Amino acid sequence: MRILSGIQPSGSLHIGNYFGMMKRMIEYQENHELFCFIVNYHALTSVFDAEKLRRQTYEAILDFLALGLDPEKSIFYVQSDLPEVTELTWLLSNITGMGLLERCHSYKDKLAKGIPASHGLFSYPVLMAADILLYDADRVPVGKDQKQHVEVARDLALRFNNVYGETFVIPDADIETELATIPGLDGQKMSKSYGNTIEIFCDEAALKQKIMSIKTDSTPVDEPKPIEGNILYDLYNLFLDGPGKEWLKERFLSPGLKYGEVKKELFATIWEYFAPYRAKRAQYSREDVAAIMRRGTEKARNVAAKTLARARHNVGMDYLNF
Amino acid sequence: MRILSGIQPSGSLHIGNYFGMMKRMIEYQENHELFCFIVNYHALTSVFDAEKLRRQTYEAILDFLALGLDPEKSIFYVQSDLPEVTELTWLLSNITGMGLLERCHSYKDKLAKGIPASHGLFSYPVLMAADILLYDADRVPVGKDQKQHVEVARDLALRFNNVYGETFVIPDADIETELATIPGLDGQKMSKSYGNTIEIFCDEAALKQKIMSIKTDSTPVDEPKPIEGNILYDLYNLFLDGPGKEWLKERFLSPGLKYGEVKKELFATIWEYFAPYRAKRAQYSREDVAAIMRRGTEKARNVAAKTLARARHNVGMDYLNF
Repeated sequence: MRILSGIQPSGSLHIGNYFGMMKRMIEYQENHELFCFIVNYHALTSVFDAEKLRRQTYEAILDFLALGLDPEKSIFYVQSDLPEVTELTWLLSNITGMGLLERCHSYKDKLAKGIPASHGLFSYPVLMAADILLYDADRVPVGKDQKQHVEVARDLALRFNNVYGETFVIPDADIETELATIPGLDGQKMSKSYGNTIEIFCDEAALKQKIMSIKTDSTPVDEPKPIEGNILYDLYNLFLDGPGKEWLKERFLSPGLKYGEVKKELFATIWEYFAPYRAKRAQYSREDVAAIMRRGTEKARNVAAKTLARARHNVGMDYLNF
Repeated sequence: MRILSGIQPSGSLHIGNYFGMMKRMIEYQENHELFCFIVNYHALTSVFDAEKLRRQTYEAILDFLALGLDPEKSIFYVQSDLPEVTELTWLLSNITGMGLLERCHSYKDKLAKGIPASHGLFSYPVLMAADILLYDADRVPVGKDQKQHVEVARDLALRFNNVYGETFVIPDADIETELATIPGLDGQKMSKSYGNTIEIFCDEAALKQKIMSIKTDSTPVDEPKPIEGNILYDLYNLFLDGPGKEWLKERFLSPGLKYGEVKKELFATIWEYFAPYRAKRAQYSREDVAAIMRRGTEKARNVAAKTLARARHNVGMDYLNF
């Protein structure tokens, strides 16, 4: 089973990204053929600062490698290292009805938020369909917000095969329904746009300061603490196994627990949890990254070249072969 | 001055295409640096038959070569041999306002004619802008119907340079106002969609049959013939020089001229006019064409690679260089 999953290079990785998506994404490599890529073409719909985008793309690569993505086991690449995807976007565009794109919630939501209506935003799903179809992906694990985009990819694959003859594998969306929403420091969903994130690879002082600022309630020390909707409790749980979770619950439900002390504990736990990843992250030189991505691009291109050749032939771009 | 001009591979070339556009296009190579290309990506917006598109693209190459396009002097290529243009299309999309595309007459006209609204049709002007900007074209000669599309290219170049820093040459449209509309067999504008065309490279019998079917009026032989709006007169004139035109006018304005005889004369004139081109066209083997296009692609790529590298850098795709 070939699984494809991409992530936009959106700045410093936080534990919401990690537990919400990235950890599971990386785990796919154990039992599947994983295509994992940094989505920097799509990032252009919202990032207009080139230097920022370069840095964020590079940092995202380091994050994946540090957190265990194995570039030998998986096919790991940066979207724009395979511009083939933009050619496939054009080939798909001609069988994409405008209505299909106009009905996409994600586009409408962005406009509703006051983001200017650019053609990049509008055609986002066509590029995403090309991302999926170029690599003959069977399954695309996504959150609920991206479900419709995978359905667009599916529609376009079916329609293309129907108009031009068998060309693409029909992908399935794999909706990650179990995903817990990770709370941020203030209890809202952890998200860069709410400024409530805990970065994974920040320095020790910054991490401590963030953890100490987690919003807690004013239950007196000598009373049991509420666990429902308790941000500190929920965050701590992310780092515990079964028995650890039990033990934490007991402590919260017994009088005497001091939030301040639990915060210090949580800080130490997180710092330790990511220590090996931090060490690994520091090992990669610019040259290492270049070599790894070169190799990933090559592996991805072996697949992309075949799909694209099929698609080009089926629409009639190979004018010497009639 | 670098001039860029493309033509869609729309089937057998007729004298309307030739005198309306192609002849002049080829003449640019004498005094300018001409980039001339067969627009087969755009053709995908209306041609969904791969074999037809392959054949028409190949025939269009032969037409250009036969009619005098010099692949040594000019840069002659097929659009889809340089998929770079689709990557540039994506880079441009993110600074393309939806309103700009929604205002394009050509799109609205196509919808008004009942053509289904595809994303390919809608984003046609963005791909066309990429065609122009990728090759640093200074000037783009177009008919009135394409003027707005060159203005879009101009707008996007200015906007891109403004958002990301100096990247593109700003192109100018060169509206071909003098172009006479070439009448078809029935007097309407010669156009494939009216079924009133005279093909340049058809066989002798077919040509004769077409010329004999030109619509004429019923002025008696012993009266002078009207020249205003006289299809036969207008078509014949295309093949005459100054003194020839004078002589034809005199004959039409004198009693005694027989339309049937003039038609036979016109047929012989056209057949003779295109004889050297026909002979030249027959000379090219599939291998010749492949070699010529390979060389053209290489020359075009030398220019395209530089522009694209600038654009990729300026938006931040080069993630190893921060």
